[in-house]
Amino acid sequence: MKLDMQEYFLACSVKVRFVETDANGHMSHLSPVIYMEQARTELVLALGMGDLAKGETFFLAKQSVEYKKQAYFYDTIDIYCRVASYSKTTLEIEYVMVNQKDEIIVTAAASFVYYDANKQRVMRLPQDLQERIDALKQKPLLQHS
Amino acid sequence: MKLDMQEYFLACSVKVRFVETDANGHMSHLSPVIYMEQARTELVLALGMGDLAKGETFFLAKQSVEYKKQAYFYDTIDIYCRVASYSKTTLEIEYVMVNQKDEIIVTAAASFVYYDANKQRVMRLPQDLQERIDALKQKPLLQHS
Amino acid sequence: MKLDMQEYFLACSVKVRFVETDANGHMSHLSPVIYMEQARTELVLALGMGDLAKGETFFLAKQSVEYKKQAYFYDTIDIYCRVASYSKTTLEIEYVMVNQKDEIIVTAAASFVYYDANKQRVMRLPQDLQERIDALKQKPLLQHS
Amino acid sequence: MKLDMQEYFLACSVKVRFVETDANGHMSHLSPVIYMEQARTELVLALGMGDLAKGETFFLAKQSVEYKKQAYFYDTIDIYCRVASYSKTTLEIEYVMVNQKDEIIVTAAASFVYYDANKQRVMRLPQDLQERIDALKQKPLLQHS
Repeated sequence: MKLDMQEYFLACSVKVRFVETDANGHMSHLSPVIYMEQARTELVLALGMGDLAKGETFFLAKQSVEYKKQAYFYDTIDIYCRVASYSKTTLEIEYVMVNQKDEIIVTAAASFVYYDANKQRVMRLPQDLQERIDALKQKPLLQHS
Repeated sequence: MKLDMQEYFLACSVKVRFVETDANGHMSHLSPVIYMEQARTELVLALGMGDLAKGETFFLAKQSVEYKKQAYFYDTIDIYCRVASYSKTTLEIEYVMVNQKDEIIVTAAASFVYYDANKQRVMRLPQDLQERIDALKQKPLLQHS
Repeated sequence: MKLDMQEYFLACSVKVRFVETDANGHMSHLSPVIYMEQARTELVLALGMGDLAKGETFFLAKQSVEYKKQAYFYDTIDIYCRVASYSKTTLEIEYVMVNQKDEIIVTAAASFVYYDANKQRVMRLPQDLQERIDALKQKPLLQHS
Repeated sequence: MKLDMQEYFLACSVKVRFVETDANGHMSHLSPVIYMEQARTELVLALGMGDLAKGETFFLAKQSVEYKKQAYFYDTIDIYCRVASYSKTTLEIEYVMVNQKDEIIVTAAASFVYYDANKQRVMRLPQDLQERIDALKQKPLLQHS
């Protein structure tokens, strides 16, 4: 798979914490799942969706992770995201995690349902979502946060 | 999807810890990934593969999780597993997580590569793997551990 | 320090998960803090305090952990607790964690404030707390859960 | 307690991740323990001690945490550290965690033993430790990492 990284923006950058390693001597398989969530938070904010004060308005329906290469304690991992597709109520996100040598260590994907937690029902995604996504593609996010 | 639970065995049973919840008020999306690992440990032991004294001899290549239903603090979750398929060097595992009301809360899958960490190379799965799998299907695992 | 284990009851028993190890090859320093929380849940329930349906009614004010001995993946750790002391609104708990060789691996302590989360104020501990504590000392808890 | 913050340097700054919250709606009691470890990594590097390539050369002997104020999802927490004292082989570190409103949310302390993991024995701290500590006091660390 050749990744067209131009579609992706840099959602966040993390350093692998020692507690995020395991007794195999490298980053735990769990850690990328944590990083995906952090990247998704930035994506939701950057798209102007979800009101943190009221709790998250996305529910995670499924996620998958492919482990390409080991990462180690104190590695810097950049997490790139893109909106792969969306429907009336769902959003598909893809992730690529890259180490400081520009090697892809993880690819991942997640499906979200947009949801009003107070009314307990699925919501329509914003009408202007395509514009928001296009606007996001113009800029690396990392500098905001 | 109708699950043929007869193919599955009970790898382990967990109670959702408070730290395994999040500010949405229910079990974090991360927790099933933790439970998958615990179930896999029991599977590897039950199949007589992997020598814990020498470290794990399986590498996780990919995993995916589908969230079907919320779980809450102190819920008891039973994690059922089955070997869905295998090739010379890889093992495909499927998981079903069931709450105390017998509702499926999560389904999941993971692919592993059998690996000799000392020689740093992929290994062949045991010749008699099919027999081991068949033997495992005869018994619920939970009682061992 | 000679511990008078007779004052303690067995709050819970855990197996060290692989994600609870770190790249030092043994149990992470974080894991006992997780186990303390699990033990505290059992203590709160066993004392008949705290209504899980309404959220926790204890706030953790401080905690401390002493690491006596390493633990490893898949070790079985028994977490013993006792109520060391209490005042009108606070509870002091002490913990001892013991491995399968009966070696103490961790000792710990925590202070809690009893709290009504709805009214957002500190509450008095139950009048009959001493009786509840005495009743708890008569029985190992583990078998309930 | 009035803290003399001038003795502290800024080891790192974190944003509270969603997985670091719990069903009480705020940051889990566990998260500051994670942040302490991250701050300690920066301290060890900043003091020129510990060789990450060879694994950590500090063992945590004990740690304690006091919870002063709640923190919430996506809060920015600055973790300040200081070397409170040291002996021939041990190091005492104190931590203060401050939110974006400059409120202290956590104070903490930890004791470490300097250790050669290969020779499996306690080591003497560097002769010039006081100079290293003094040098560190001159600069905020955050900008390095």
